[in-house]
Amino acid sequence: MSTVQAPAPDPLDGGRLLARLKDLARFTDVPGEMTRLSLSPAHKAAAGEVARWFAGAGMAVHLDATGAVVGRYEGGTPGMPPLILGSHIDTVRNAGIFDGNLGVVVALAVVERLHADGTRLPFPIEVVAFADEEGVRFPSTLTSSRALAGRFDPATLDDRDADGISRRAALEAFGADPAAIAACSRAGRALGYVEAHIEQGPVLEALGLPLGIVTAIAGATRAVVDVRGQAGHSGTLPMEMRQDALTGAAEMILAAEARAKGETGLVATVGTLAIPGAAVNVVPGTVRFSLDVRAPDDGQRLRAFADITARIRDIAAARGLQARLDVTYEAAAAPCDPHFQAALSHAAERLGLPAHRLPSGAGHDGLSLSGAMPIVMLFVRSTNGSHNPREHAEAADIGLAAQVLHGFVTAFDPAG
Amino acid sequence: MSTVQAPAPDPLDGGRLLARLKDLARFTDVPGEMTRLSLSPAHKAAAGEVARWFAGAGMAVHLDATGAVVGRYEGGTPGMPPLILGSHIDTVRNAGIFDGNLGVVVALAVVERLHADGTRLPFPIEVVAFADEEGVRFPSTLTSSRALAGRFDPATLDDRDADGISRRAALEAFGADPAAIAACSRAGRALGYVEAHIEQGPVLEALGLPLGIVTAIAGATRAVVDVRGQAGHSGTLPMEMRQDALTGAAEMILAAEARAKGETGLVATVGTLAIPGAAVNVVPGTVRFSLDVRAPDDGQRLRAFADITARIRDIAAARGLQARLDVTYEAAAAPCDPHFQAALSHAAERLGLPAHRLPSGAGHDGLSLSGAMPIVMLFVRSTNGSHNPREHAEAADIGLAAQVLHGFVTAFDPAG
Repeated sequence: MSTVQAPAPDPLDGGRLLARLKDLARFTDVPGEMTRLSLSPAHKAAAGEVARWFAGAGMAVHLDATGAVVGRYEGGTPGMPPLILGSHIDTVRNAGIFDGNLGVVVALAVVERLHADGTRLPFPIEVVAFADEEGVRFPSTLTSSRALAGRFDPATLDDRDADGISRRAALEAFGADPAAIAACSRAGRALGYVEAHIEQGPVLEALGLPLGIVTAIAGATRAVVDVRGQAGHSGTLPMEMRQDALTGAAEMILAAEARAKGETGLVATVGTLAIPGAAVNVVPGTVRFSLDVRAPDDGQRLRAFADITARIRDIAAARGLQARLDVTYEAAAAPCDPHFQAALSHAAERLGLPAHRLPSGAGHDGLSLSGAMPIVMLFVRSTNGSHNPREHAEAADIGLAAQVLHGFVTAFDPAG
Repeated sequence: MSTVQAPAPDPLDGGRLLARLKDLARFTDVPGEMTRLSLSPAHKAAAGEVARWFAGAGMAVHLDATGAVVGRYEGGTPGMPPLILGSHIDTVRNAGIFDGNLGVVVALAVVERLHADGTRLPFPIEVVAFADEEGVRFPSTLTSSRALAGRFDPATLDDRDADGISRRAALEAFGADPAAIAACSRAGRALGYVEAHIEQGPVLEALGLPLGIVTAIAGATRAVVDVRGQAGHSGTLPMEMRQDALTGAAEMILAAEARAKGETGLVATVGTLAIPGAAVNVVPGTVRFSLDVRAPDDGQRLRAFADITARIRDIAAARGLQARLDVTYEAAAAPCDPHFQAALSHAAERLGLPAHRLPSGAGHDGLSLSGAMPIVMLFVRSTNGSHNPREHAEAADIGLAAQVLHGFVTAFDPAG
């Protein structure tokens, strides 16, 4: 079954993988930028190319019912469940070329290397290019991985994008069969899920480390805080008679920051703030701001959120303001499997790399899969965050990620 | 010369004055609300009605070159300069019926009473219904009172409203002659200017006092503060690596509040705040907010503004942020003449009223006249601020204002 591709470079070579990412970036809905919304024409074209690449690596390929490209590299022992590798190939608007795509290209490279080496593992490997991770087009998201976890919500088929196109119609136009989604489930029938991804944060860069092993995908609580005081004229309302919603909100924002500081892994962010009816000469009567609290440990997050809520109430009471807090989103943390973390660490250490562990503050497809199978993620050092054209990972680091993932896969013990 | 109007109620009666304000409110550009923008058709109609009322009180009336209605009640001693009373009859959009109009109606009532009593003072009284106080329609404002002060800027004739109509064209349509504006000046040729006006703030209401004597119209410094940090992902950017422009701005907002608190007359307000590119899951990279500092004493204001500026710089430096502060507006305070204040106090005390003194945080036509002649203002207790349909002054308080102003005028000593 082995095919020797002697003159070709090592499939795990970082320069090759970077070139492949640039190649894949030609599939965009908006020429001149990287925009490939879920189930769009550019996504369909990219999925076709990825399917060809998968097939070229000796995999049996199909488009699943959620629009994900699935390649299967058979195992040597009949009846064994697959180890699943992958990431997503949908992007945000005006994205970079690394977020998501890197994990697919790295997973593919591992199979290409197995294929090139003629290596056949006892268990099958499935490489998945998920179709719906960014959540930009439809109100719901992670549907591709939720289907794999047996947790797809059929109601999301009726979700509509800004043009009024339903997810069902978009799937059909994409060539996927929404009626077959229930059959996508691999819950309890997979060895696990491993995803390489750019860090999207500055931690590895600051530490000077190419790779990191993810301990957990953080849970998140999001809320909208509505602060009401009394509007007034900026000139005629004396300071001591004010019920200024903005100075109250300022104190609340600093309280959230203070609570999160100094606890590892915990973050609290106020990202939006609006003052309805704002004017230079009007003391703000109403302020509305968002609050986003995340932590790799659910207890840690819930304690912090409760403390911040209590501080908000206290500040409002002391200032004669009304504060109302509405939770708009809540997601439990997805801890990464300790054995998988250890196995990734060993794979890194075998290459002489430090195995730094860190949480993922961003959500990923692994969030959906957590509980349905063991999950772990391998972070690749990146610069300039993510979701913008300047996001970047070095070829050398991408190559190391491919080597570590290859080492993980070849050393993987299905018996745990 | 005297005309006895025996069966009529006392011209100074508060109920009569409130009824007259309601009557004047029928002149609106937007039926169902009080909207009478400067030089609009409703303003023209209102000016016509006011001119008729002025004439009915024995005054010689003309429309001045800025659109102000001027009524002159002759004095007994030839050649004496006039004492000017008045306020404005233009309004903001969806205004109340008291702001401005009250001062015109009260000043008119004083002359009506003199006329009814057959009283002729040595000096003339001019009642002015200024045409351009609110500054809503054109980019420049207070042009009517600036002309009276000999400080009209001819360049403002080319200012245009949102429909592209120039002030020059609006004046001509109004029936005023822009070429004659220079001749409006009364600088150095008036005994002074006295204006009754609703307080627009809650101080008199809180003290339970019907009237207040204004010590100064506050000076103001306005600035835009631009805070720059580094945007980032709310999940992936650890607290200790953040340069969050919003938490920095929050600290600056609280510093401005703290500096202004506890110093009588000083106020500092952040009325607008914007986060370009804001999202729930993005650490704010840039924040822009307004700062409005006012005080009745220029030194007090400038010291406070300098202190707040220094705190903004310190906070930015401590947080690794860039802060830039651009002053967009600066106006010196207009102190009210001490003799005029004392004379108003005596007039109030003669009626058994306490003569509470307070600064005006809002701007008024007196701001333009300050320096060209002595000025003073008489505040009338009001509720619900101003510039909204709920602003309100009680008939009894309006009547007291008319009585105090009448007492001031009849006791006025032109020799100072």
